[in-house]
Amino acid sequence: MFESAELGHKIDKATYDAEVPKLRVALLDAQFDLAQKASFPVIILVGGVDGAGKGETVNLLNEWMDPRFMQAHAMGSPSDEELQRPQMWRFWRALPPKGKIGMFFGSWYTAPIVQRVMGKTKASQLAQSIDQINRFEKMLTDEGALILKFWFHLSKDAQKKRLKSLEKDSKTRWRVTDTDWERFKIYDKFRKVSEHALRETSTAEAPWMVVEGTDPRYRGLTVGKILLETLRKRLDHPAKTAAVKGAPLQAPIDKLDVFDKLDMAQKLAKKVFESELEKYQGKLNLLTRDPRFRKMSVIAVFEGSDAGGKGGAVRRITAALDARHYRIIPIAAPTEEERAQPYMWRFWRHIPRNGGVTIFDRSWYGRVLVERVEKFCSEQDWMRAYSEINDFEEQLVDNKTVLVKFWLAISKDEQLRRFKEREKIGFKRFKITAEDWRNREKWDDYERAVCDMIDRTSTEIAPWTLVEANDKNFARIKILKTLCQQIEAAMKRKK
Amino acid sequence: MFESAELGHKIDKATYDAEVPKLRVALLDAQFDLAQKASFPVIILVGGVDGAGKGETVNLLNEWMDPRFMQAHAMGSPSDEELQRPQMWRFWRALPPKGKIGMFFGSWYTAPIVQRVMGKTKASQLAQSIDQINRFEKMLTDEGALILKFWFHLSKDAQKKRLKSLEKDSKTRWRVTDTDWERFKIYDKFRKVSEHALRETSTAEAPWMVVEGTDPRYRGLTVGKILLETLRKRLDHPAKTAAVKGAPLQAPIDKLDVFDKLDMAQKLAKKVFESELEKYQGKLNLLTRDPRFRKMSVIAVFEGSDAGGKGGAVRRITAALDARHYRIIPIAAPTEEERAQPYMWRFWRHIPRNGGVTIFDRSWYGRVLVERVEKFCSEQDWMRAYSEINDFEEQLVDNKTVLVKFWLAISKDEQLRRFKEREKIGFKRFKITAEDWRNREKWDDYERAVCDMIDRTSTEIAPWTLVEANDKNFARIKILKTLCQQIEAAMKRKK
Repeated sequence: MFESAELGHKIDKATYDAEVPKLRVALLDAQFDLAQKASFPVIILVGGVDGAGKGETVNLLNEWMDPRFMQAHAMGSPSDEELQRPQMWRFWRALPPKGKIGMFFGSWYTAPIVQRVMGKTKASQLAQSIDQINRFEKMLTDEGALILKFWFHLSKDAQKKRLKSLEKDSKTRWRVTDTDWERFKIYDKFRKVSEHALRETSTAEAPWMVVEGTDPRYRGLTVGKILLETLRKRLDHPAKTAAVKGAPLQAPIDKLDVFDKLDMAQKLAKKVFESELEKYQGKLNLLTRDPRFRKMSVIAVFEGSDAGGKGGAVRRITAALDARHYRIIPIAAPTEEERAQPYMWRFWRHIPRNGGVTIFDRSWYGRVLVERVEKFCSEQDWMRAYSEINDFEEQLVDNKTVLVKFWLAISKDEQLRRFKEREKIGFKRFKITAEDWRNREKWDDYERAVCDMIDRTSTEIAPWTLVEANDKNFARIKILKTLCQQIEAAMKRKK
Repeated sequence: MFESAELGHKIDKATYDAEVPKLRVALLDAQFDLAQKASFPVIILVGGVDGAGKGETVNLLNEWMDPRFMQAHAMGSPSDEELQRPQMWRFWRALPPKGKIGMFFGSWYTAPIVQRVMGKTKASQLAQSIDQINRFEKMLTDEGALILKFWFHLSKDAQKKRLKSLEKDSKTRWRVTDTDWERFKIYDKFRKVSEHALRETSTAEAPWMVVEGTDPRYRGLTVGKILLETLRKRLDHPAKTAAVKGAPLQAPIDKLDVFDKLDMAQKLAKKVFESELEKYQGKLNLLTRDPRFRKMSVIAVFEGSDAGGKGGAVRRITAALDARHYRIIPIAAPTEEERAQPYMWRFWRHIPRNGGVTIFDRSWYGRVLVERVEKFCSEQDWMRAYSEINDFEEQLVDNKTVLVKFWLAISKDEQLRRFKEREKIGFKRFKITAEDWRNREKWDDYERAVCDMIDRTSTEIAPWTLVEANDKNFARIKILKTLCQQIEAAMKRKK
C-alpha cells in the first residue's frame, strides 16, 4: 500500500506558488457552500508516521481555509470523564456538526495500531477493532458524513535521514529525543501493522489516501486537492439515500409472533405485590450502595405501548435509589444541535459515569418503532439502525454497563380501558390526545415493528425483557426483579 | 436565623396522610404546567447540617413529582475537566433548562462555608465569595430563573441525640463514623459561619428558607408546600421585566468620545509589516510552547465594525499556533439549547482547558451592541449585562486565563470603501448583504453603544484594546503584539 508513497514525490516552488492561490480560493468557496447548506459534516482523519507532516498539514489547511468552520482535535490521554465511558465516547463528543469540518489527530485508529505494535494485543483483537471501526465509519457515512482519511508516510530511509538531519543542526537537535530513535527501531513492525489496518479499513465509502510526507509542497498540495475535489463532488452531487437491497421484512406467514407466547393474564395480588415491592426495592437500594457498584453503571431502557405503564414502573425504581445517582432521560423530538449530528449522538451524550444509573423513557429504539411506522425516516435508515443499535449496546456492555431493556406489553383492550379511564380523571399529565388515538389505529403496524425489533436486537449481550403489563403490579415487580438480577449477575462476573 | 427551626416542629401522621395526596396532585399539576410553558427554569439549593434530611427530602420530591423533569446534582469532588475551569463552570454546565427543575446538593455555598469553618480562608475572602454568589444569583433571577434555597437545620442538642440514637441501634451504628463526631465538635463554628452566609445571601429574589430537620413529616410537608406555592405563584403571575430605574445612558454632551482620541491615520509600510509579522508570530508561537503555558489558557475576543478586518486578524494569530491547541467560536444566533439557558451559558460552555486558546469571533458583547441597538432585548437586560460581563471576566482572570479584548475600529468612509470593494470581488464569503447596509445606517447608534461598552467593561483586569484598523497591516501587528505582551505579563506574574 505504501509503494507509491516511496517514490520521492516532489513539487517545485514555481508550480506550487502558481497552484496554491487558485486552490485556496476554491477551497474557501467549497467551505462556504458547506457551511451555508449545512447538510453534512466533514471528518478528516490524520494518521501516519512521525515527522511525515501530520501537524504541518492540518495547520496548512487551517491557514488556507476559514478556521471558524473547522476544528482540529488532538486526542491525547483521556480525561477522567472520558475514561469512565466506552472508548468511542470521546470521539462522539468531538464529532463536527453538519456544515463543519472536524480534523482528528490520534483518531480511533491510534490505540488499536499502537497496542498491536507494542504487543499488548493479539492479532484477533486487532481484527475485532478493525471490524468495529468499519462499522462505525459505515454508520457515519450512512448518516451522511463525508470522511477523508489521510495517512502520511515516510520510507524507513527517509525517516532515518530526517532524524539524522535534525540532529546535525544545533537549532533542531532538541526535537530528536530518545523516544524518536526507540520508535524508529520498531518502524518495520509499525509499518506492517498499519499497512494491514489500512488495507482492511479502506472501504468504498471511506478509503485511505496515502500521502508521501517527505516534500512539504507535495503533501500540502496533494491533500488540498483531494479535499477540494471530494468536497466539491459531494456538494454538487448530494448523496441520495440508497434503496434497500436486502429482502423486505415480512410478518411470519402464520401470524404467530412473540406476543402470542406471553401470558397476559398474569396478576399479582395487592398483598403479595406490597411485600415483593418492599423486598426488591430494598435489594436494589443495597445493590446500588455496594462498593462494587462504584465501578459499573446501569442503563435501563423503557419502551412499550402508549399507556403501558412506563412512568409508574420507572417511579418504582427511582423510589429505591438515591436521587444523586440516577438520571431520567425522556426522549422527545431531537433538539437543533442533535439534528446536526448522527442519529445515535443524542444517546451517546447521556451515557452515565461509573456509579450512575440512567433511565431512558423511550430511547434509540424510536428509530425502528415510531420513525419506521410513521415513515419519519427512510426504510434504509431504520433497516441499518438494527445493527447500529447492536454495535452501540455492545460498546456499553464492554464498558461494564449493565444494560436492561424492558418492553411493556398490554393488550389492545387494556389500552382502550386505560385511555377511557384517563379521559375521565382529567389529570393533566395523563391527558389523552388525538395523537394517542391515531397511534392506536396503527396497532398492527406497531406490533409488527416491535416483533422485528425484538428479533433483531434481543442479543446475548443485551436481551429484551418482555413485560406482561396488563396488571401493573405484576409488571412492576417483574421489572424490579429483573433489574436486581442483572446487576447482581454483573457484580458476580466482575469478581 | 435558626430560632424558628429549633422549636421542635412536628406534624402528626394523620395530618400528614391527609395532606400529602392533595399536595402531590397539585405539585404534579404545577410541574406539568412548568414543562409545558417552558418559560423558566427552577433551581433548588439544598444545604444545611448533616443528618437534617437533605437527601431524604430530595428523594421525597422525586417520589412526589415527575422525576423525568427534575434532576438532582451531587457536587462531589470536581473532575479534571472541571478543575481546569473557573469554579463556577461545573454549576453552569449543570443548570436546568427552562421548564425543568435542577436540585443541587453541595451548591456554590459549600466551598466558601466549609473553607471558612476549617480556617482555610479569612473573613474577607468569605465576604468576597458571598458577594459573588449574590451577583450570580441575581443574574439567574434576572434571567428568569426561579431559585429556592432550603437550609435544613438541627439544633446542637438534636444533632447529638441523633448521633447517639444511631449509635445505640446495631442496625444503624455503621452510619456514625468518627468524621461525624469530628464535625459535631465544630457545630458552633459551622452554625456561626453559615448563619452569617445565609443572612447575607437572603435576598428578595432568592431568600433562604430554613427548615427544622428533626421531624421527617414536618420537613417534607414544609418543603413541598413552599415549592408548590412558589411555583404556582410564578406560573400564574409571570414575572414582568422591570423597567430600568437608574439614570439613562447618555452620550457626552460635548460629543467627544474615545474614538476621537484614536489616530486613525496610523499605517505600517509593507516591509515593516512583514518583518514585524514574522517577529510577533514567532514570539507567539514560542510563548505557546513554553511549559508555563500548559498551566494557563487564553481567551481572545474580537469585536469591531462590519468589514473591520476581524477575520484577517484572527488568521494572522492562528497561523502562529498549532491547530491542536486553539479553537475559534464564531458567535451566531443561539441554538435551541442555548436559548433555554441564561444568556452567558453559551459562552461558559466554550471556556478552554489549560493550554488552550479560544478565539471568540464576536462574543458576549453582542448583548450590549447589536442586541441593544436592534432592540433584541430590553433596556433592563442590556443594562445589567455590563456587570454580568465584568463578573464573568473576573472569574476567567482569577482562573489564570489571559483575557484579551480587541475592538477593531474603522472610519465610516473606510467601511464604505471596503463594502464597495467587496461588492466588486464577489468572493462569496465576503458578500455584502442588505443587512450590512442597514447596519451601516445605524452607525451612530452603534458607535454610542461601543463607547458605553468600553466605559463600562474596560476594567483593570480585562481592559479593551482599541485597534485603529483603517490600515490592516497596522491593526494586525498591534493585535499580535498586544497578545504577546499580555501572555508574557501573565507568565511573569506567575513566577
